[in-house]
Amino acid sequence: MSRLLTLDEITEQLCRAESYEDVFHHSLHNQPMPSVEVLREVVARLQAILFPGYFGDSEIAPETMRFHVGAGLDVVARLLTEQIRRGRCFFCRHNDVPHEEPDCDACEDAARRTTGLFLSSLPEIRRLLAVDVRAAYVGDPAARHPGETIFCYPSILALTHHRIAHALHQQDVELIPRIIAEMAHSKTGIDIHPGAQIGEGLFIDHGTGVVVGETCIIGANVRIYQGVTLGAKSFPKDANGALIKGIARHPIVEDEVVIYAGATLLGRITIGKGSVVGGNVWLTEDLPPGSHVVQQRAGETSSRILLGNGRA
Amino acid sequence: MSRLLTLDEITEQLCRAESYEDVFHHSLHNQPMPSVEVLREVVARLQAILFPGYFGDSEIAPETMRFHVGAGLDVVARLLTEQIRRGRCFFCRHNDVPHEEPDCDACEDAARRTTGLFLSSLPEIRRLLAVDVRAAYVGDPAARHPGETIFCYPSILALTHHRIAHALHQQDVELIPRIIAEMAHSKTGIDIHPGAQIGEGLFIDHGTGVVVGETCIIGANVRIYQGVTLGAKSFPKDANGALIKGIARHPIVEDEVVIYAGATLLGRITIGKGSVVGGNVWLTEDLPPGSHVVQQRAGETSSRILLGNGRA
Amino acid sequence: MSRLLTLDEITEQLCRAESYEDVFHHSLHNQPMPSVEVLREVVARLQAILFPGYFGDSEIAPETMRFHVGAGLDVVARLLTEQIRRGRCFFCRHNDVPHEEPDCDACEDAARRTTGLFLSSLPEIRRLLAVDVRAAYVGDPAARHPGETIFCYPSILALTHHRIAHALHQQDVELIPRIIAEMAHSKTGIDIHPGAQIGEGLFIDHGTGVVVGETCIIGANVRIYQGVTLGAKSFPKDANGALIKGIARHPIVEDEVVIYAGATLLGRITIGKGSVVGGNVWLTEDLPPGSHVVQQRAGETSSRILLGNGRA
Amino acid sequence: MSRLLTLDEITEQLCRAESYEDVFHHSLHNQPMPSVEVLREVVARLQAILFPGYFGDSEIAPETMRFHVGAGLDVVARLLTEQIRRGRCFFCRHNDVPHEEPDCDACEDAARRTTGLFLSSLPEIRRLLAVDVRAAYVGDPAARHPGETIFCYPSILALTHHRIAHALHQQDVELIPRIIAEMAHSKTGIDIHPGAQIGEGLFIDHGTGVVVGETCIIGANVRIYQGVTLGAKSFPKDANGALIKGIARHPIVEDEVVIYAGATLLGRITIGKGSVVGGNVWLTEDLPPGSHVVQQRAGETSSRILLGNGRA
Amino acid sequence: MSRLLTLDEITEQLCRAESYEDVFHHSLHNQPMPSVEVLREVVARLQAILFPGYFGDSEIAPETMRFHVGAGLDVVARLLTEQIRRGRCFFCRHNDVPHEEPDCDACEDAARRTTGLFLSSLPEIRRLLAVDVRAAYVGDPAARHPGETIFCYPSILALTHHRIAHALHQQDVELIPRIIAEMAHSKTGIDIHPGAQIGEGLFIDHGTGVVVGETCIIGANVRIYQGVTLGAKSFPKDANGALIKGIARHPIVEDEVVIYAGATLLGRITIGKGSVVGGNVWLTEDLPPGSHVVQQRAGETSSRILLGNGRA
Amino acid sequence: MSRLLTLDEITEQLCRAESYEDVFHHSLHNQPMPSVEVLREVVARLQAILFPGYFGDSEIAPETMRFHVGAGLDVVARLLTEQIRRGRCFFCRHNDVPHEEPDCDACEDAARRTTGLFLSSLPEIRRLLAVDVRAAYVGDPAARHPGETIFCYPSILALTHHRIAHALHQQDVELIPRIIAEMAHSKTGIDIHPGAQIGEGLFIDHGTGVVVGETCIIGANVRIYQGVTLGAKSFPKDANGALIKGIARHPIVEDEVVIYAGATLLGRITIGKGSVVGGNVWLTEDLPPGSHVVQQRAGETSSRILLGNGRA
Repeated sequence: MSRLLTLDEITEQLCRAESYEDVFHHSLHNQPMPSVEVLREVVARLQAILFPGYFGDSEIAPETMRFHVGAGLDVVARLLTEQIRRGRCFFCRHNDVPHEEPDCDACEDAARRTTGLFLSSLPEIRRLLAVDVRAAYVGDPAARHPGETIFCYPSILALTHHRIAHALHQQDVELIPRIIAEMAHSKTGIDIHPGAQIGEGLFIDHGTGVVVGETCIIGANVRIYQGVTLGAKSFPKDANGALIKGIARHPIVEDEVVIYAGATLLGRITIGKGSVVGGNVWLTEDLPPGSHVVQQRAGETSSRILLGNGRA
Repeated sequence: MSRLLTLDEITEQLCRAESYEDVFHHSLHNQPMPSVEVLREVVARLQAILFPGYFGDSEIAPETMRFHVGAGLDVVARLLTEQIRRGRCFFCRHNDVPHEEPDCDACEDAARRTTGLFLSSLPEIRRLLAVDVRAAYVGDPAARHPGETIFCYPSILALTHHRIAHALHQQDVELIPRIIAEMAHSKTGIDIHPGAQIGEGLFIDHGTGVVVGETCIIGANVRIYQGVTLGAKSFPKDANGALIKGIARHPIVEDEVVIYAGATLLGRITIGKGSVVGGNVWLTEDLPPGSHVVQQRAGETSSRILLGNGRA
Repeated sequence: MSRLLTLDEITEQLCRAESYEDVFHHSLHNQPMPSVEVLREVVARLQAILFPGYFGDSEIAPETMRFHVGAGLDVVARLLTEQIRRGRCFFCRHNDVPHEEPDCDACEDAARRTTGLFLSSLPEIRRLLAVDVRAAYVGDPAARHPGETIFCYPSILALTHHRIAHALHQQDVELIPRIIAEMAHSKTGIDIHPGAQIGEGLFIDHGTGVVVGETCIIGANVRIYQGVTLGAKSFPKDANGALIKGIARHPIVEDEVVIYAGATLLGRITIGKGSVVGGNVWLTEDLPPGSHVVQQRAGETSSRILLGNGRA
Repeated sequence: MSRLLTLDEITEQLCRAESYEDVFHHSLHNQPMPSVEVLREVVARLQAILFPGYFGDSEIAPETMRFHVGAGLDVVARLLTEQIRRGRCFFCRHNDVPHEEPDCDACEDAARRTTGLFLSSLPEIRRLLAVDVRAAYVGDPAARHPGETIFCYPSILALTHHRIAHALHQQDVELIPRIIAEMAHSKTGIDIHPGAQIGEGLFIDHGTGVVVGETCIIGANVRIYQGVTLGAKSFPKDANGALIKGIARHPIVEDEVVIYAGATLLGRITIGKGSVVGGNVWLTEDLPPGSHVVQQRAGETSSRILLGNGRA
Repeated sequence: MSRLLTLDEITEQLCRAESYEDVFHHSLHNQPMPSVEVLREVVARLQAILFPGYFGDSEIAPETMRFHVGAGLDVVARLLTEQIRRGRCFFCRHNDVPHEEPDCDACEDAARRTTGLFLSSLPEIRRLLAVDVRAAYVGDPAARHPGETIFCYPSILALTHHRIAHALHQQDVELIPRIIAEMAHSKTGIDIHPGAQIGEGLFIDHGTGVVVGETCIIGANVRIYQGVTLGAKSFPKDANGALIKGIARHPIVEDEVVIYAGATLLGRITIGKGSVVGGNVWLTEDLPPGSHVVQQRAGETSSRILLGNGRA
Repeated sequence: MSRLLTLDEITEQLCRAESYEDVFHHSLHNQPMPSVEVLREVVARLQAILFPGYFGDSEIAPETMRFHVGAGLDVVARLLTEQIRRGRCFFCRHNDVPHEEPDCDACEDAARRTTGLFLSSLPEIRRLLAVDVRAAYVGDPAARHPGETIFCYPSILALTHHRIAHALHQQDVELIPRIIAEMAHSKTGIDIHPGAQIGEGLFIDHGTGVVVGETCIIGANVRIYQGVTLGAKSFPKDANGALIKGIARHPIVEDEVVIYAGATLLGRITIGKGSVVGGNVWLTEDLPPGSHVVQQRAGETSSRILLGNGRA
């Protein structure tokens, strides 16, 4: 353990450039980092807009809905534009090129336009989520009412975040989609990269430990259980040994596939339409449509060793 | 991506009935949805009542305990009655039969009586939790003091929520138990359906990824590790192809069973008293009492391929 | 279900000593329990000190950094001393020996000195985290900027909590490190015991379900994926049948090892430098340096049963 | 001073009916008291509606104004209906006639209708306040911009509260107007009874200590300074010696009157149009239009005693 | 105006001992100042205890009242003891005599005992306030219900604060009573020194600007209007020219006296029982019982100068 | 009363330009109004800087003071610059000249420079306040300790706000000083215009109702009691009948003057050094140094009308 230092000494050490240089964010434009708190508010307001009466002001009526929706959109537009601008600022190359003057007005305009396009996609996002809701209700024998899945299922929570994050990711928004994805990951244990393309009617049951990678493509009406990984098998490196970023490396899951708990699917494989992947299956190759894959039941049985008084 | 719409256009699209009809909650009785915030307060107050001195006002003394317990119960009674009533309202069939007059007074009375019965079960809930606490202390070599498990173990957190949710579920309370179960799921990664019947002295170590299904029956002094699934093997459908809800479809785990990390137990199987199920085991059949099941160790060893320079 | 009791009856039952004795904390010194809220603030302030400009006041500049760092340290020193003192109080043996007078001043002094030593280790903690940040950036093809990993990766969140908790654990601080570890566990699904010794440059990708046990030793530049368990194989008991606490029972993972998703490594085994452990592998024996272990690919393939219309 | 009692004894004394009977509110209908917090929110939302861009969301634009105004009105309608209902409940005669069944539905309907009428008067309330704003700007040589008076003058704050409270008072709403009036009194030191009838364009400069009684009638374009009392001269009693409530007993102040600081005007007197009342004047009789009343300047001068070294 | 300094220069100047010595509080015992926030909570909890159903939990019932009262008293006892101890610490002479060891345990005991005595006086404080409530209801023609005066009259707010502050002042508690008195002063404009002795049934109408000095003695059933000063006429100094503190220097107001708005009563004079003092009267001499004093009406009339076009 | 309108109708009326035009703030630059909340934080942080150990972190020590002061100044600099910029924006003439492009960068620079100059004056502001503190302690027989006046006297609260507001006003900052002055006015009832020039050592006892006008000049060691007005006698108008703004129209009060409660001093008069003005005196002419002015005592006595059973 370190020797006892005075507060002055600790401060002095922590304020040496060689101590902080790799962990300090100093924006050229005096722009703060995006605010996780504000993004939480943005998502909460979007939930209220997408699922009126379930979130936000829960006593909303059809007659007054347009006031609440319009006002909510207006506030989201302002908050989100600001956060997107901050995200751009964080990645601005002028941070590293201090003598070049950044064009902050252009950045502001881009953020505003991006936000506008994102908001324009909300009707489609809602349409997809409505199918997700139905899928969750139909797919879970414990569900009593579609609204129950809207109000308390991790699947809908995670997909609402994802569909928002993905729409922003499609607009090349930086940082913000990742923050939104992590919100859902933290609350539900479901980790979906904002880049993943997910069709309508996905249901993720229980969900803890699910991982869906950046270049995944998931079709319509797919069902996934807890602990399923749709991951990369390997990470190709370039000539310098650096990871090549952005290449397609995650599975394609076609329509109506079901993947049971703990299955691990790695690499750019295609799981054909209507296939069923059993629990804990490890899969790194394509499956033709209609396949049913399970852990080898016989081997499984024979692998049991029944001991009268042994210990695991 | 969508084309850029004006705020008015987006509002207009989102306020068309065909857009919102499946994702809008409009109660007949002008009752708001249950409040997750209030339910969080209810659970926090119940924790303070069940574990005095650990939660809530931590300087409580035996001489004044009855004031705090009595006042806490009175507040919980009021808050919970209101939330139960809202939950009933959400499921009220009069929402769909607008011309029939709902009997809201009867609903209010039922909520009040249900709450009273729930509160009457608190002494028994505490008794069960006290055994759970001892089990966690005894079962974890890293635990220094039983109180440490009360104060910071996910196991006790999850079981406190579950025993509350289950007592409400037994009273046929709707929606509220599920919300409470999801609170624990979100915080701990442990997903126990409120319907699961769990005996005294359960210890869930680490816990992330544990799933305990609706019709599970767990005996006394059971120990479960992270990633264990006690799930359903299949979902029988009725003649119309709809899932049949509510039938017994999850395992029965008898007293003193231990189930190690990542094991998956599916279907209405019975794990006999004192059995030990090893990590990652996949099990879909009954086990007689005293069984010890592990992954095939030899097969495990032989299944390793040692490569000097390969890649996983 | 219980019969309906009055509020007075429930209160009376809950305030009987035999009901509350095992679940009631009554300190001799009238000291409250440590405050999770305050510890959250301590960690947040430490994050702002360790990663200036990312957390806390995000518009900090090098010229004024020392004011913010110094002020932050001063506040943390006070808050943490108080929490450590409370933690000592909770474990104070005088709670059980009421007639012996506790030496609270000595306890206060010890808490202050412990805090001082902990703060003295912050420069080293930051150095380790800076390597962790680089490892996360290099190791994730989806990462765009090292700062992105600081700001939103669960890996850095978990390691920041762990390195703080571990430094306190090394000072024999009780309860507080565990609370801090559980904060990270709850947010990320990554459960690292404060006792685990972790070298620089660890990257935990996705992370949900990862368990790292109390006596683990992890070398430098290790990479771990979601669902990996570094656990104990068995829990030796003493002559009285009580668990023996504190003995080395978790894996040693040497430098540059990679462990893929869902692998389970149990017991005091050593994974030699540069080894690669494939996904879902179950491992209870040492691996020599440079080993590459995967699930048996052939067996895996043969274990698939392709059925045209079967069910998992 | 009292002798030292135990907590139990104090509790017992405070819970005797003879101790609490005059200071305990126990509603028959289990309705809580109106919430001062909610009424504060109601007023804040009304300020945002009345003065868009100054209060509430200060970045509002004409294009989106109707969303914010409509949503704000809808929320206010719900909150205020509930508070008015609670106020009715507080005064419900059934509280004292326990055997008669109250008609709570009728009460709810009345509250809803009252709220609707109140909201319908908002355009007129805004019109009056717009004239008040102009009066404050014109009347204060220190004012730089009319908006400054909206944003920070006690006069506008007090009049906004009053015009809201008065509109409710005109609808025979109980308790709520008084609570709103006291909010303004507490913040500004200006105490206007909700019953007072105040024409457009009132300006109250500085304001601390101003009292305007229940039956006052104030014309248009009046100016009042700090410490002015428009009070009652006497309180007629009935045959039983009880005060007769509600009779006209406060001044009528006609258009364009100016009343300087500290003047005291008592009783049902009429201050004719355009009169000027000097500071500290004591007035209990009518003044014809155009009167100018000041403290006797000569007497004032002669009343000074100049002493070289005296003390006041 | 000052020249422009750098942040470092300003910091340096403000941290010179000669800059801060008179405005810096540095306790010997590392005790923080009393917390105004906590004292606000103490007063709020005392209001809930004194006026059950009006403040705090407004749905309290006689059957459960003792739980809420007992729990409230227990919390107040702890919070207030701590604040009183801090107040003692602030005035501790050891702050100025650093080499003498303070007896903090004795201080803690004294604070606890003082709090106990204060709480023991609550039944009597409530009795006095109940008479005050009746006086406010009877004395104000605009009051509709005694409860209205409890819930929203500044008079009751100020007297609740005063009677609490005075009971603490009687126990020689330092600083805390003054802080409580200033809370009421800030909210109501009524400034009553905690030392003032006030009989039952005081009603202070409107109240803004009322000042009641430290050594005032007010009898039963007195009525006071806004702007009344019961102050000191002069401040005798000792041989060194320093003010002599603590001598009786404010009026004695006997039972059933009425003092109208703006009257100024200075010095140790006695206003005899049942006297009436008119508005704006300036009084520095005793009044026999039954006196009625008003501003000279004739002089008042003659002092008017009616000018057709003059200006005040 | 208005007829009952629908929500749509009310919205429609309130959103007509002729309804909102005089009460709507629509900035050209999309800048929000200054934030009263942020300014409250600014003042609170300045109090903590000016009176270390009394406000803010009350356990500050000389060794760490510079960290807290430096960090506090840095935060205030940022917050205040932003608020000053917003204030400038509010008054920007480009709001009314939409076709001219505003130079927002210049505005930002000016705000930054103004803030720098303001912060540079803090050492002098503290020096003045230290003398004010001493004056309050010496001047109040009830004060026990100078620190008591810092911590709870309205006089110090009001002067802290004023000296901050005045320093900003001297830099021609708009709106912000007025907001700060109104904060103090609302809390204390003391209304000091930011323009007033006040020498060191002012003590305002009780303070409710005190008004100090924009062009007042107050010397050193002055004492003022509650209800004192230092106001304007008349408001000269220009040829168009508009008030002429900014001319010297309030009293000059020289060193060591004492003004007792309720005195009214109007116009550009000079109260000579060491003069004493009695309570309720009305004064519109110069007083030579050393004057003592009281209400005519004899007249006062003779003005009493003693009536056996009259009414005031």
